[in-house]
Amino acid sequence: MVLEIEEKVIEAKKASIILASVSTDTKNEALEAMAQALDDNRDKILEANQKDIEAAEKLKRKGELSQALVDRLKVSDSKISGMIDGIRDVIKLEDPVGKTIDALELDQGLELYQVSCPIGLIGVIFEARPDVVPQVMSLCLKSGNATIFKGGSEALNSNRVIFDLLNEAAESTKGMTSGAFQLMETREEVNDILSMDAYIDLLIPRGSNAFVKYMQDNTKIPVLGHADGICHVYVDDEADLSKAYEVCFDSKVQYPAVCNAMETLLINAEIAEKFLPKMARMYDDAGVQMRCDETSFEILGQIDFLKSIARAIEDDWRTEYNDLTLSIKIVESMDEAIEHINNYGSHHTDAIITENDLKKKKFTELIDSSSVMLNASTRFADGFRYGKGAEVGISTNKIHARGPVGMEGLLIYKYILVGNGDKVADYAGPDAKKFTHRKLNKKVGDAVSRK
Amino acid sequence: MVLEIEEKVIEAKKASIILASVSTDTKNEALEAMAQALDDNRDKILEANQKDIEAAEKLKRKGELSQALVDRLKVSDSKISGMIDGIRDVIKLEDPVGKTIDALELDQGLELYQVSCPIGLIGVIFEARPDVVPQVMSLCLKSGNATIFKGGSEALNSNRVIFDLLNEAAESTKGMTSGAFQLMETREEVNDILSMDAYIDLLIPRGSNAFVKYMQDNTKIPVLGHADGICHVYVDDEADLSKAYEVCFDSKVQYPAVCNAMETLLINAEIAEKFLPKMARMYDDAGVQMRCDETSFEILGQIDFLKSIARAIEDDWRTEYNDLTLSIKIVESMDEAIEHINNYGSHHTDAIITENDLKKKKFTELIDSSSVMLNASTRFADGFRYGKGAEVGISTNKIHARGPVGMEGLLIYKYILVGNGDKVADYAGPDAKKFTHRKLNKKVGDAVSRK
Repeated sequence: MVLEIEEKVIEAKKASIILASVSTDTKNEALEAMAQALDDNRDKILEANQKDIEAAEKLKRKGELSQALVDRLKVSDSKISGMIDGIRDVIKLEDPVGKTIDALELDQGLELYQVSCPIGLIGVIFEARPDVVPQVMSLCLKSGNATIFKGGSEALNSNRVIFDLLNEAAESTKGMTSGAFQLMETREEVNDILSMDAYIDLLIPRGSNAFVKYMQDNTKIPVLGHADGICHVYVDDEADLSKAYEVCFDSKVQYPAVCNAMETLLINAEIAEKFLPKMARMYDDAGVQMRCDETSFEILGQIDFLKSIARAIEDDWRTEYNDLTLSIKIVESMDEAIEHINNYGSHHTDAIITENDLKKKKFTELIDSSSVMLNASTRFADGFRYGKGAEVGISTNKIHARGPVGMEGLLIYKYILVGNGDKVADYAGPDAKKFTHRKLNKKVGDAVSRK
Repeated sequence: MVLEIEEKVIEAKKASIILASVSTDTKNEALEAMAQALDDNRDKILEANQKDIEAAEKLKRKGELSQALVDRLKVSDSKISGMIDGIRDVIKLEDPVGKTIDALELDQGLELYQVSCPIGLIGVIFEARPDVVPQVMSLCLKSGNATIFKGGSEALNSNRVIFDLLNEAAESTKGMTSGAFQLMETREEVNDILSMDAYIDLLIPRGSNAFVKYMQDNTKIPVLGHADGICHVYVDDEADLSKAYEVCFDSKVQYPAVCNAMETLLINAEIAEKFLPKMARMYDDAGVQMRCDETSFEILGQIDFLKSIARAIEDDWRTEYNDLTLSIKIVESMDEAIEHINNYGSHHTDAIITENDLKKKKFTELIDSSSVMLNASTRFADGFRYGKGAEVGISTNKIHARGPVGMEGLLIYKYILVGNGDKVADYAGPDAKKFTHRKLNKKVGDAVSRK
């Protein structure tokens, strides 16, 4: 069993070497063939999805699956159109492979190029959503990375049909390699995949926090993702309160189920009595449950109309509600807010509302998070809004890619040294030649084909 | 015991937040004070080192330590001068923190900045060499990273004196934080440090391959380094043989004890009979032991003067000799060479000797290594030669930093979004505003202080 999986992984790893050198035109042709294959086989996809939906409905009736999961599983004709559009968007993206990042003359005729290249073999482990396969496969193909897909068992039929259509379309394109994309199916395979650090260079999880955490805790392969999104907004005593109302409302209410929504509101004591009552009324009207520290509870306790306020406990400061629940704390200073955020937060996204430029600067420097917002909603922290085209994930990792990550997160670089029989011995000892270390404005292609 | 270590690590982690915002001038003043402290206390350092040397000599006589280790341990007056020069070189390096990497207008008045920042808390675990402390501390200080040092017990006295001098000099500089640098001493602490993935963001090992491998296998913290350096040179049938002799000799003989020296020579069958005998004679004269595959053994077997040739076994292709030993294999094609390299190599540094431009291009694309050399010695793969000023390490990792890594490997970035009360709700729904996603030619400093 494990052997068969390992064979698939080794096949993909081997193919990854070839895929790294496939031309842009060939990759774009493969992507267009993939889009076309989905368009030509809508009925087949809907039919397979129907089987998954029926099985999921049964499990739901037994209480083993939630309606939310059934919804995520559902593929409609317009969702297929979305998949097709997504693939065609990737065709439009510039080929990120083989770009000269830096060029340096070490000595006359000895030139060092830093050149972008694919990471190699990516493992994507995802829960129900069948739209992960076209999205990730198109990004990986364009960036020259081979990919192992491991989807949830609930989407077994949908994933299989979609994967086969895409993979056949890609592999039948002239100049493409075969074996670069592999689909794993049974549930036991997750742990097998996590153990294959000898072959898999990067894991991308798509699923719940618990799911990501499990992966992070059970593999030596780097994981691009985040387990928690405990985001804060700090309303400073020098805040423009009209901005504060807008940002605090948006950060919590606009879409609370996601990782970049605010979970804890920190308010400077100086302005708390002025700011909080109106803010609380806005939240209350929107159905937000408030969990207050002692001071904010006292302030709000004087207002009798509020439907849902409670006292916060220590755990609240560490909780990602992903829901219309908000913890509120009054702080004496920005420093206290910063310490709270760095201590209880998840280093994802945190905001300050202030008009003081020095405080803005200090806040950006001292908050140890992947996104820091100045007078703007935490909800902006997202690959699409950050202009990345397609999002690979949001990383709270501090190595490689951090924050919302686009296709650039699937790339690394290699150094290419172009010489002419050069040897280090000439640069050592008493008569050592000196390195020039002069910046070059050249591309690696010129250097390799010139000679 | 563990608690005390954890306290030190937590103190450093807290200090890392402050250190991230210390000004360039303050950091440079601290560095100059560090250099001065070493210069003012040469006798004290030599005295402490003498104690370590005496203890090491005793262990050597008992056969528990090698002469090489005693040599590495030894601090001389000129080595202290080298440490001082190294620190002053770091003062000259540009401050890498707070650089605007990218700037994008999301919409009018809503600007996204990608800004460089320190990684946070670095753990440096090293074997005997006492010169690691000044080198790494100066690089980490300049890049705003707090650092935990864990040295080998053989250099206990030297490390303690050098660390205390440097740390006191740094901490007594006006504007510097305290607690950012910590020295651990006893041997048991290595495993404790490896377990502190909650606090330590990156580990840098300085020691033998086995030492690095142990760390990689026993921690969830990312490790910047490489366990093996199995480097290859492939001599193509279209090689300029005069270049081949130079590069192949230099790659093996110039300094064989290091990771970027060649371990396996691959020769195209077409030119093997012409090339190999003279090459083998050069190696033989230099005292290189050759381990040959069947074909190369047949070719060399006809030459009776060679002192040291033997048949290679399978293990030879996976062995880093770090010595005047070389394995030699004849291949039928460049493709066979590439497959051998990707399969048996360590993805460190590999070279091709050829005059064919298409082959050069293909080789750079298909070799999955951090440095690929075209007609140049593998020995060039090194931070100093690559113009990095100071080398943090050579990484065969494919995430974050790859190849020779300078101070840039101690940095990551954060996103700073500068708004004016902006909310995502305005960009959602039927009347959604559109993002402009227009490239800006601005620095984050302008945006933060402008408003």
